[in-house]
Amino acid sequence: MLVEFSVIPIGIGSSLGSQLAEVLKIVDASGLPYKLNPMGTVMEGEWDEIMKLVKKCHGAIMKKGERVVTTITIDDRKGKPDRIELKVKSLEKRIGKSLKK
Amino acid sequence: MLVEFSVIPIGIGSSLGSQLAEVLKIVDASGLPYKLNPMGTVMEGEWDEIMKLVKKCHGAIMKKGERVVTTITIDDRKGKPDRIELKVKSLEKRIGKSLKK
Amino acid sequence: MLVEFSVIPIGIGSSLGSQLAEVLKIVDASGLPYKLNPMGTVMEGEWDEIMKLVKKCHGAIMKKGERVVTTITIDDRKGKPDRIELKVKSLEKRIGKSLKK
Amino acid sequence: MLVEFSVIPIGIGSSLGSQLAEVLKIVDASGLPYKLNPMGTVMEGEWDEIMKLVKKCHGAIMKKGERVVTTITIDDRKGKPDRIELKVKSLEKRIGKSLKK
Repeated sequence: MLVEFSVIPIGIGSSLGSQLAEVLKIVDASGLPYKLNPMGTVMEGEWDEIMKLVKKCHGAIMKKGERVVTTITIDDRKGKPDRIELKVKSLEKRIGKSLKK
Repeated sequence: MLVEFSVIPIGIGSSLGSQLAEVLKIVDASGLPYKLNPMGTVMEGEWDEIMKLVKKCHGAIMKKGERVVTTITIDDRKGKPDRIELKVKSLEKRIGKSLKK
Repeated sequence: MLVEFSVIPIGIGSSLGSQLAEVLKIVDASGLPYKLNPMGTVMEGEWDEIMKLVKKCHGAIMKKGERVVTTITIDDRKGKPDRIELKVKSLEKRIGKSLKK
Repeated sequence: MLVEFSVIPIGIGSSLGSQLAEVLKIVDASGLPYKLNPMGTVMEGEWDEIMKLVKKCHGAIMKKGERVVTTITIDDRKGKPDRIELKVKSLEKRIGKSLKK
Protein backbone atom coordinates (compact mmCIF):
# COMPACT_ATOMS: atom_id res chain seq x y z
CA MET A 1 0.00 0.00 0.00
CA LEU A 2 0.95 3.65 -0.52
CA VAL A 3 1.01 5.86 2.58
CA GLU A 4 1.63 9.57 2.95
CA PHE A 5 2.26 10.88 6.44
CA SER A 6 3.32 14.07 8.16
CA VAL A 7 4.20 14.80 11.78
CA ILE A 8 3.56 18.33 13.10
CA PRO A 9 5.04 19.37 16.45
CA ILE A 10 2.70 21.85 18.17
CA GLY A 11 3.88 24.48 20.61
CA ILE A 12 7.62 24.48 19.99
CA GLY A 13 7.66 27.55 17.74
CA SER A 14 6.93 28.07 14.05
CA SER A 15 10.25 26.66 12.81
CA LEU A 16 9.94 22.88 12.73
CA GLY A 17 13.04 22.00 10.70
CA SER A 18 15.15 20.34 13.38
CA GLN A 19 12.23 18.14 14.46
CA LEU A 20 11.35 17.19 10.88
CA ALA A 21 15.01 16.37 10.17
CA GLU A 22 14.80 13.80 12.96
CA VAL A 23 11.72 12.22 11.35
CA LEU A 24 13.48 12.05 7.97
CA LYS A 25 16.54 10.39 9.48
CA ILE A 26 14.28 7.63 10.83
CA VAL A 27 12.54 7.25 7.46
CA ASP A 28 15.79 7.23 5.48
CA ALA A 29 17.35 4.65 7.83
CA SER A 30 14.34 2.31 7.55
CA GLY A 31 15.26 0.96 4.13
CA LEU A 32 11.62 1.22 2.96
CA PRO A 33 10.96 2.96 -0.36
CA TYR A 34 10.00 6.60 0.23
CA LYS A 35 9.63 9.94 -1.53
CA LEU A 36 9.84 13.24 0.34
CA ASN A 37 7.72 16.18 -0.83
CA PRO A 38 7.27 19.68 0.67
CA MET A 39 4.13 18.58 2.59
CA GLY A 40 4.94 15.04 3.73
CA THR A 41 6.59 11.71 3.03
CA VAL A 42 5.13 9.01 0.79
CA MET A 43 6.10 5.39 1.53
CA GLU A 44 5.21 2.02 0.10
CA GLY A 45 5.01 -1.21 2.10
CA GLU A 46 2.80 -3.44 4.22
CA TRP A 47 0.51 -2.08 6.98
CA ASP A 48 2.54 -3.32 9.95
CA GLU A 49 5.99 -2.19 8.79
CA ILE A 50 4.77 1.26 7.79
CA MET A 51 2.67 1.85 10.91
CA LYS A 52 5.60 0.74 13.11
CA LEU A 53 7.75 3.36 11.37
CA VAL A 54 5.13 6.14 11.66
CA LYS A 55 4.71 5.29 15.37
CA LYS A 56 8.49 5.60 15.82
CA CYS A 57 8.54 9.02 14.10
CA HIS A 58 5.52 10.26 16.08
CA GLY A 59 7.07 9.00 19.33
CA ALA A 60 10.42 10.66 18.65
CA ILE A 61 8.71 14.06 18.34
CA MET A 62 6.36 13.49 21.30
CA LYS A 63 9.42 12.79 23.47
CA LYS A 64 10.63 16.35 22.87
CA GLY A 65 7.37 18.22 23.23
CA GLU A 66 3.87 18.34 24.64
CA ARG A 67 1.68 17.89 21.58
CA VAL A 68 1.97 16.38 18.10
CA VAL A 69 -0.54 16.17 15.23
CA THR A 70 0.21 13.30 12.82
CA THR A 71 -1.78 12.69 9.65
CA ILE A 72 -1.71 9.43 7.67
CA THR A 73 -3.38 8.77 4.30
CA ILE A 74 -3.43 5.20 2.98
CA ASP A 75 -4.17 4.25 -0.64
CA ASP A 76 -4.39 0.45 -0.74
CA ARG A 77 -4.98 -1.33 -4.05
CA LYS A 78 -4.90 -5.06 -4.68
CA GLY A 79 -2.30 -6.51 -7.02
CA LYS A 80 -0.49 -3.26 -7.81
CA PRO A 81 3.15 -3.26 -6.66
CA ASP A 82 5.69 -0.42 -7.09
CA ARG A 83 3.00 2.24 -7.23
CA ILE A 84 5.42 4.73 -5.63
CA GLU A 85 7.17 4.84 -9.02
CA LEU A 86 4.46 3.77 -11.46
CA LYS A 87 1.51 5.97 -10.40
CA VAL A 88 3.13 9.21 -11.55
CA LYS A 89 4.69 7.60 -14.65
CA SER A 90 1.29 6.24 -15.67
CA LEU A 91 -0.22 9.74 -15.36
CA GLU A 92 2.58 11.18 -17.50
CA LYS A 93 2.02 8.53 -20.13
CA ARG A 94 -1.69 9.37 -20.29
CA ILE A 95 -1.01 13.09 -20.63
CA GLY A 96 1.87 12.56 -23.04
CA LYS A 97 4.26 14.89 -21.29
CA SER A 98 6.61 15.03 -18.33
CA LEU A 99 5.14 16.64 -15.17
CA LYS A 100 6.96 18.52 -12.37
CA LYS A 101 7.96 16.31 -9.44
CA MET B 1 -4.54 10.29 22.11
CA LEU B 2 -7.48 11.47 19.99
CA VAL B 3 -7.79 9.90 16.52
CA GLU B 4 -10.24 10.63 13.71
CA PHE B 5 -10.39 8.13 10.88
CA SER B 6 -12.45 7.41 7.80
CA VAL B 7 -12.42 4.46 5.39
CA ILE B 8 -13.50 5.13 1.78
CA PRO B 9 -14.18 2.17 -0.52
CA ILE B 10 -13.24 3.08 -4.12
CA GLY B 11 -14.86 1.55 -7.14
CA ILE B 12 -17.97 -0.08 -5.64
CA GLY B 13 -20.37 2.71 -6.60
CA SER B 14 -21.20 6.06 -5.03
CA SER B 15 -23.40 4.63 -2.24
CA LEU B 16 -21.06 3.50 0.54
CA GLY B 17 -23.60 2.97 3.34
CA SER B 18 -23.47 -0.81 3.66
CA GLN B 19 -19.65 -0.79 3.77
CA LEU B 20 -19.54 2.03 6.32
CA ALA B 21 -22.12 0.23 8.48
CA GLU B 22 -19.69 -2.67 8.68
CA VAL B 23 -16.92 -0.33 9.87
CA LEU B 24 -19.22 1.17 12.52
CA LYS B 25 -20.20 -2.27 13.81
CA ILE B 26 -16.50 -3.02 14.39
CA VAL B 27 -15.98 0.35 16.13
CA ASP B 28 -19.09 0.01 18.30
CA ALA B 29 -18.14 -3.56 19.34
CA SER B 30 -14.59 -2.51 20.34
CA GLY B 31 -15.60 -0.97 23.64
CA LEU B 32 -13.29 2.03 23.02
CA PRO B 33 -14.78 5.51 23.46
CA TYR B 34 -15.88 6.93 20.11
CA LYS B 35 -17.98 9.66 18.53
CA LEU B 36 -19.40 9.32 15.03
CA ASN B 37 -19.78 12.45 12.86
CA PRO B 38 -20.91 12.84 9.22
CA MET B 39 -17.29 12.75 7.96
CA GLY B 40 -15.60 10.19 10.19
CA THR B 41 -15.23 8.57 13.59
CA VAL B 42 -13.28 10.08 16.49
CA MET B 43 -11.79 7.69 19.05
CA GLU B 44 -9.66 8.03 22.16
CA GLY B 45 -7.10 5.49 23.32
CA GLU B 46 -3.51 4.31 23.07
CA TRP B 47 -1.66 4.03 19.72
CA ASP B 48 -1.61 0.24 19.51
CA GLU B 49 -5.26 -0.42 20.42
CA ILE B 50 -6.54 2.25 18.04
CA MET B 51 -4.29 1.29 15.12
CA LYS B 52 -5.26 -2.37 15.56
CA LEU B 53 -8.91 -1.32 15.27
CA VAL B 54 -8.36 0.92 12.23
CA LYS B 55 -6.42 -1.92 10.53
CA LYS B 56 -9.36 -4.26 11.19
CA CYS B 57 -11.83 -1.76 9.67
CA HIS B 58 -9.59 -1.11 6.65
CA GLY B 59 -9.08 -4.86 6.15
CA ALA B 60 -12.81 -5.63 6.34
CA ILE B 61 -13.49 -3.22 3.47
CA MET B 62 -10.43 -4.32 1.42
CA LYS B 63 -11.73 -7.90 1.60
CA LYS B 64 -14.84 -6.86 -0.33
CA GLY B 65 -13.24 -4.62 -2.94
CA GLU B 66 -10.19 -3.68 -4.93
CA ARG B 67 -9.19 -0.34 -3.46
CA VAL B 68 -9.64 1.56 -0.20
CA VAL B 69 -8.49 5.02 0.88
CA THR B 70 -8.19 5.37 4.67
CA THR B 71 -7.30 8.65 6.40
CA ILE B 72 -6.13 8.91 10.02
CA THR B 73 -5.50 12.12 11.99
CA ILE B 74 -3.88 11.86 15.42
CA ASP B 75 -3.89 14.62 18.04
CA ASP B 76 -1.62 13.45 20.87
CA ARG B 77 -1.19 15.62 23.96
CA LYS B 78 0.63 14.70 27.14
CA GLY B 79 -1.29 14.49 30.42
CA LYS B 80 -4.73 15.23 28.99
CA PRO B 81 -7.19 12.34 29.45
CA ASP B 82 -10.87 12.28 28.36
CA ARG B 83 -10.31 14.83 25.62
CA ILE B 84 -13.08 13.18 23.57
CA GLU B 85 -15.53 14.80 26.01
CA LEU B 86 -13.60 17.75 27.43
CA LYS B 87 -12.21 19.38 24.24
CA VAL B 88 -15.62 20.52 22.99
CA LYS B 89 -16.87 21.40 26.50
CA SER B 90 -13.80 23.56 27.08
CA LEU B 91 -14.49 25.43 23.82
CA GLU B 92 -18.11 26.00 24.85
CA LYS B 93 -17.00 27.33 28.23
CA ARG B 94 -14.65 29.80 26.52
CA ILE B 95 -17.37 31.04 24.17
CA GLY B 96 -20.00 31.05 26.88
CA LYS B 97 -22.62 29.23 24.81
CA SER B 98 -23.61 25.77 23.70
CA LEU B 99 -22.43 24.79 20.19
CA LYS B 100 -24.02 22.38 17.68
CA LYS B 101 -22.68 18.81 17.92
CA MET C 1 -21.48 19.37 -0.16
CA LEU C 2 -20.21 18.20 3.24
CA VAL C 3 -16.93 19.74 4.43
CA GLU C 4 -14.88 19.02 7.54
CA PHE C 5 -12.14 21.49 8.40
CA SER C 6 -9.70 22.21 11.19
CA VAL C 7 -7.33 25.12 11.76
CA ILE C 8 -4.14 24.45 13.75
CA PRO C 9 -2.06 27.39 14.99
CA ILE C 10 1.63 26.42 15.03
CA GLY C 11 4.16 27.94 17.40
CA ILE C 12 1.89 29.62 19.96
CA GLY C 13 2.16 26.86 22.58
CA SER C 14 0.39 23.53 22.99
CA SER C 15 -2.85 25.03 24.35
CA LEU C 16 -4.92 26.16 21.36
CA GLY C 17 -8.27 26.75 23.05
CA SER C 18 -8.49 30.52 22.83
CA GLN C 19 -7.59 30.45 19.12
CA LEU C 20 -10.07 27.67 18.36
CA ALA C 21 -12.80 29.52 20.27
CA GLU C 22 -12.32 32.39 17.84
CA VAL C 23 -12.78 30.01 14.89
CA LEU C 24 -15.95 28.59 16.41
CA LYS C 25 -17.40 32.05 16.98
CA ILE C 26 -16.98 32.74 13.26
CA VAL C 27 -18.56 29.40 12.33
CA ASP C 28 -21.48 29.82 14.75
CA ALA C 29 -22.17 33.35 13.53
CA SER C 30 -22.22 32.29 9.86
CA GLY C 31 -25.71 30.78 9.98
CA LEU C 32 -24.53 27.77 7.95
CA PRO C 33 -25.41 24.29 9.29
CA TYR C 34 -22.46 22.86 11.25
CA LYS C 35 -21.54 20.15 13.74
CA LEU C 36 -18.53 20.46 16.03
CA ASN C 37 -16.58 17.31 16.98
CA PRO C 38 -13.37 16.90 19.03
CA MET C 39 -11.21 16.92 15.87
CA GLY C 40 -12.86 19.48 13.62
CA THR C 41 -16.02 21.14 12.35
CA VAL C 42 -18.34 19.63 9.73
CA MET C 43 -20.38 22.03 7.60
CA GLU C 44 -22.83 21.69 4.73
CA GLY C 45 -23.24 24.21 1.92
CA GLU C 46 -22.04 25.34 -1.49
CA TRP C 47 -18.31 25.54 -2.40
CA ASP C 48 -18.07 29.35 -2.42
CA GLU C 49 -19.89 30.07 0.85
CA ILE C 50 -17.96 27.38 2.75
CA MET C 51 -14.54 28.28 1.33
CA LYS C 52 -15.17 31.96 2.13
CA LEU C 53 -15.87 30.96 5.73
CA VAL C 54 -12.81 28.68 6.01
CA LYS C 55 -10.63 31.48 4.57
CA LYS C 56 -12.03 33.87 7.21
CA CYS C 57 -11.23 31.37 10.01
CA HIS C 58 -7.74 30.66 8.65
CA GLY C 59 -7.06 34.40 8.26
CA ALA C 60 -8.22 35.23 11.80
CA ILE C 61 -5.66 32.79 13.22
CA MET C 62 -2.87 33.83 10.80
CA LYS C 63 -3.34 37.42 11.98
CA LYS C 64 -2.29 36.41 15.50
CA GLY C 65 0.60 34.13 14.67
CA GLU C 66 3.32 33.13 12.24
CA ARG C 67 2.12 29.79 10.92
CA VAL C 68 -1.17 27.94 10.52
CA VAL C 69 -1.96 24.48 9.15
CA THR C 70 -5.54 24.15 7.88
CA THR C 71 -7.02 20.88 6.60
CA ILE C 72 -10.20 20.65 4.52
CA THR C 73 -11.98 17.45 3.44
CA ILE C 74 -14.87 17.72 0.97
CA ASP C 75 -17.43 14.98 0.31
CA ASP C 76 -19.55 16.14 -2.62
CA ARG C 77 -22.45 14.02 -3.83
CA LYS C 78 -25.03 14.94 -6.44
CA GLY C 79 -28.67 15.21 -5.45
CA LYS C 80 -28.22 14.50 -1.75
CA PRO C 81 -29.27 17.43 0.47
CA ASP C 82 -29.19 17.53 4.31
CA ARG C 83 -26.42 14.92 4.53
CA ILE C 84 -25.15 16.60 7.71
CA GLU C 85 -28.17 15.05 9.46
CA LEU C 86 -29.06 12.09 7.24
CA LYS C 87 -25.67 10.40 6.76
CA VAL C 88 -25.36 9.29 10.39
CA LYS C 89 -29.09 8.47 10.67
CA SER C 90 -28.88 6.27 7.59
CA LEU C 91 -25.93 4.36 9.13
CA GLU C 92 -27.87 3.87 12.36
CA LYS C 93 -30.86 2.55 10.41
CA ARG C 94 -28.65 0.03 8.61
CA ILE C 95 -27.09 -1.19 11.85
CA GLY C 96 -30.41 -1.15 13.71
CA LYS C 97 -29.09 0.68 16.75
CA SER C 98 -28.22 4.16 17.96
CA LEU C 99 -24.50 5.08 17.73
CA LYS C 100 -22.49 7.49 19.91
CA LYS C 101 -22.31 11.04 18.52
CA MET D 1 1.20 29.37 1.15
CA LEU D 2 1.90 25.71 0.41
CA VAL D 3 -1.12 23.54 -0.44
CA GLU D 4 -1.36 19.81 -1.11
CA PHE D 5 -4.57 18.54 -2.62
CA SER D 6 -6.01 15.35 -4.05
CA VAL D 7 -9.29 14.65 -5.86
CA ILE D 8 -10.75 11.13 -5.54
CA PRO D 9 -13.63 10.11 -7.85
CA ILE D 10 -15.93 7.67 -6.01
CA GLY D 11 -18.00 5.04 -7.75
CA ILE D 12 -16.41 4.99 -11.21
CA GLY D 13 -14.25 1.90 -10.61
CA SER D 14 -10.91 1.36 -8.91
CA SER D 15 -8.82 2.70 -11.81
CA LEU D 16 -8.78 6.48 -11.54
CA GLY D 17 -5.98 7.31 -14.00
CA SER D 18 -7.99 8.97 -16.77
CA GLN D 19 -9.79 11.22 -14.25
CA LEU D 20 -6.56 12.15 -12.47
CA ALA D 21 -4.89 12.92 -15.82
CA GLU D 22 -7.61 15.51 -16.39
CA VAL D 23 -6.86 17.11 -13.01
CA LEU D 24 -3.14 17.22 -13.82
CA LYS D 25 -3.76 18.85 -17.19
CA ILE D 26 -5.62 21.66 -15.39
CA VAL D 27 -2.82 22.03 -12.82
CA ASP D 28 -0.06 21.99 -15.44
CA ALA D 29 -1.87 24.56 -17.59
CA SER D 30 -2.36 26.95 -14.65
CA GLY D 31 1.19 28.25 -14.66
CA LEU D 32 1.36 28.05 -10.84
CA PRO D 33 4.38 26.26 -9.31
CA TYR D 34 3.49 22.64 -8.47
CA LYS D 35 5.07 19.29 -7.63
CA LEU D 36 3.26 16.02 -8.29
CA ASN D 37 3.80 13.07 -5.90
CA PRO D 38 2.18 9.60 -5.83
CA MET D 39 -0.48 10.77 -3.32
CA GLY D 40 -1.30 14.31 -4.43
CA THR D 41 -0.17 17.61 -5.87
CA VAL D 42 1.66 20.31 -3.91
CA MET D 43 1.25 23.92 -5.08
CA GLU D 44 2.45 27.30 -3.89
CA GLY D 45 0.50 30.54 -4.23
CA GLU D 46 -2.10 32.83 -2.71
CA TRP D 47 -5.37 31.50 -1.19
CA ASP D 48 -7.69 32.76 -3.94
CA GLU D 49 -5.68 31.59 -6.96
CA ILE D 50 -5.09 28.13 -5.48
CA MET D 51 -8.67 27.61 -4.28
CA LYS D 52 -9.99 28.71 -7.69
CA LEU D 53 -7.79 26.03 -9.28
CA VAL D 54 -8.80 23.30 -6.80
CA LYS D 55 -12.47 24.17 -7.39
CA LYS D 56 -11.93 23.83 -11.14
CA CYS D 57 -10.29 20.39 -10.69
CA HIS D 58 -13.01 19.19 -8.29
CA GLY D 59 -15.73 20.46 -10.64
CA ALA D 60 -14.22 18.76 -13.70
CA ILE D 61 -14.40 15.38 -11.93
CA MET D 62 -17.88 16.02 -10.44
CA LYS D 63 -19.15 16.70 -13.97
CA LYS D 64 -18.31 13.11 -14.96
CA GLY D 65 -19.53 11.30 -11.87
CA GLU D 66 -21.82 11.24 -8.86
CA ARG D 67 -19.43 11.69 -5.96
CA VAL D 68 -15.98 13.17 -5.35
CA VAL D 69 -13.87 13.36 -2.18
CA THR D 70 -11.31 16.20 -2.28
CA THR D 71 -8.76 16.81 0.47
CA ILE D 72 -6.80 20.04 0.89
CA THR D 73 -3.97 20.70 3.37
CA ILE D 74 -2.65 24.25 3.73
CA ASP D 75 0.66 25.17 5.39
CA ASP D 76 0.74 28.96 5.59
CA ARG D 77 3.81 30.71 7.00
CA LYS D 78 4.50 34.45 7.06
CA GLY D 79 7.45 35.83 5.15
CA LYS D 80 8.65 32.56 3.65
CA PRO D 81 8.49 32.54 -0.16
CA ASP D 82 9.55 29.66 -2.47
CA ARG D 83 8.93 27.03 0.19
CA ILE D 84 7.98 24.53 -2.55
CA GLU D 85 11.73 24.35 -3.33
CA LEU D 86 13.38 25.44 -0.09
CA LYS D 87 11.54 23.30 2.50
CA VAL D 88 13.04 20.02 1.27
CA LYS D 89 16.46 21.57 0.57
CA SER D 90 16.57 22.98 4.10
CA LEU D 91 15.84 19.49 5.52
CA GLU D 92 18.61 17.97 3.39
CA LYS D 93 21.05 20.63 4.61
CA ARG D 94 20.20 19.82 8.24
CA ILE D 95 20.67 16.09 7.71
CA GLY D 96 23.76 16.57 5.58
CA LYS D 97 22.67 14.22 2.81
CA SER D 98 20.43 14.08 -0.22
CA LEU D 99 16.96 12.51 0.35
CA LYS D 100 14.72 10.63 -2.12
CA LYS D 101 12.19 12.86 -3.88
